[in-house]
Amino acid sequence: MKGVFITFEGPDASGKTTQIERLRSHLVSKNLDVLVTREPGGTPISEKIRNIILDKENSEMNPVTEALLYAASRAQHVAQVIEPALRTGKIVISDRFLDSSIAYQGYGRGLGDMVRIINEPAAAEVKPDLTFLLSGDPATLRSRRSLQEEDRMDSQQNDFHRTVMKGYINIAESEPGRVRIIDACGQAEVIAREIAEIADSVIDGRSGGL
Amino acid sequence: MKGVFITFEGPDASGKTTQIERLRSHLVSKNLDVLVTREPGGTPISEKIRNIILDKENSEMNPVTEALLYAASRAQHVAQVIEPALRTGKIVISDRFLDSSIAYQGYGRGLGDMVRIINEPAAAEVKPDLTFLLSGDPATLRSRRSLQEEDRMDSQQNDFHRTVMKGYINIAESEPGRVRIIDACGQAEVIAREIAEIADSVIDGRSGGL
Repeated sequence: MKGVFITFEGPDASGKTTQIERLRSHLVSKNLDVLVTREPGGTPISEKIRNIILDKENSEMNPVTEALLYAASRAQHVAQVIEPALRTGKIVISDRFLDSSIAYQGYGRGLGDMVRIINEPAAAEVKPDLTFLLSGDPATLRSRRSLQEEDRMDSQQNDFHRTVMKGYINIAESEPGRVRIIDACGQAEVIAREIAEIADSVIDGRSGGL
Repeated sequence: MKGVFITFEGPDASGKTTQIERLRSHLVSKNLDVLVTREPGGTPISEKIRNIILDKENSEMNPVTEALLYAASRAQHVAQVIEPALRTGKIVISDRFLDSSIAYQGYGRGLGDMVRIINEPAAAEVKPDLTFLLSGDPATLRSRRSLQEEDRMDSQQNDFHRTVMKGYINIAESEPGRVRIIDACGQAEVIAREIAEIADSVIDGRSGGL
């Protein structure tokens, strides 16, 4: 793969959207070709799957169904958007990727290793070069967000979200080279500078290797 | 499991719907408690997934996405409908189940063993006691059906449907005890009698064992 794949992970309201926009601006200002995308979603088919997953009407959804829908949405996203963009040398920034499934379904829902197994054909060997984990206490982060915006995943209990956060930390500790933990409670300006510096060094390292 | 799980497999236009209705009537006339369901679908969530799978608008769907969507739909169907019904002793008849995924995605789309792997958590150890494979040349069977009814799966080429049929035959040959091959080109009345006899003997065998 000629491109560089960067993912942002962390609970909702951890500031991923803001930081992704800042990183995008930073990279574009350096004349880099950047594609920003998100999960679940990122393609018309994936967006339709996203609607089923997040619709509060579907409260009786089985955890295995949920995990398979996320994997299905990802398979389409990888095949139609991420993989082609990386092949042409773009920098792809995705708001959430496989680590979200492992943290939310594997840890949060207690489905364990099955989540990794069903996602293997979905990810099709596409793996992030760099992942920013925006980390913080879920309850504190969620208190910054209006309740009106809640969807089916948001409305889970706080201990669900704490288990998810623990899952994220386990992933980060097992892959410290790829996953960088960022304190999401810091100032947006300071966080953005830290992220830009790390991204620059990873991108420069990749370009140097070409 | 106290109940008996019977599935119908085979290409579209092989007469599954007709034969399921006849078997249902036959079993109900013997005062048995029968639940008829279908895949993809069978629950509100599964029906929403079915709509995404079969919508002709989604022509750019990746084969892995398709396989994962079928598995997701099945996971919900098993958890919400099939497993609870079998637990209470019902006879469950499903129009299509896991063998469809293996034949259409594993063989037809060439995805191979991956289909079985992603369906393991979906089927949750629910396995048919008896499967009727309505078999026949796909092109001949399809000529009996009006083109107006075609969905995205129907509109595949004839060699796709022939590969699917070969896949079905392979499954049947590897599990002759469970899968009974029925010639779909025969007379509906004759087929119905054959199916009823086989079903009776399997159901009686199960009852005797209780």
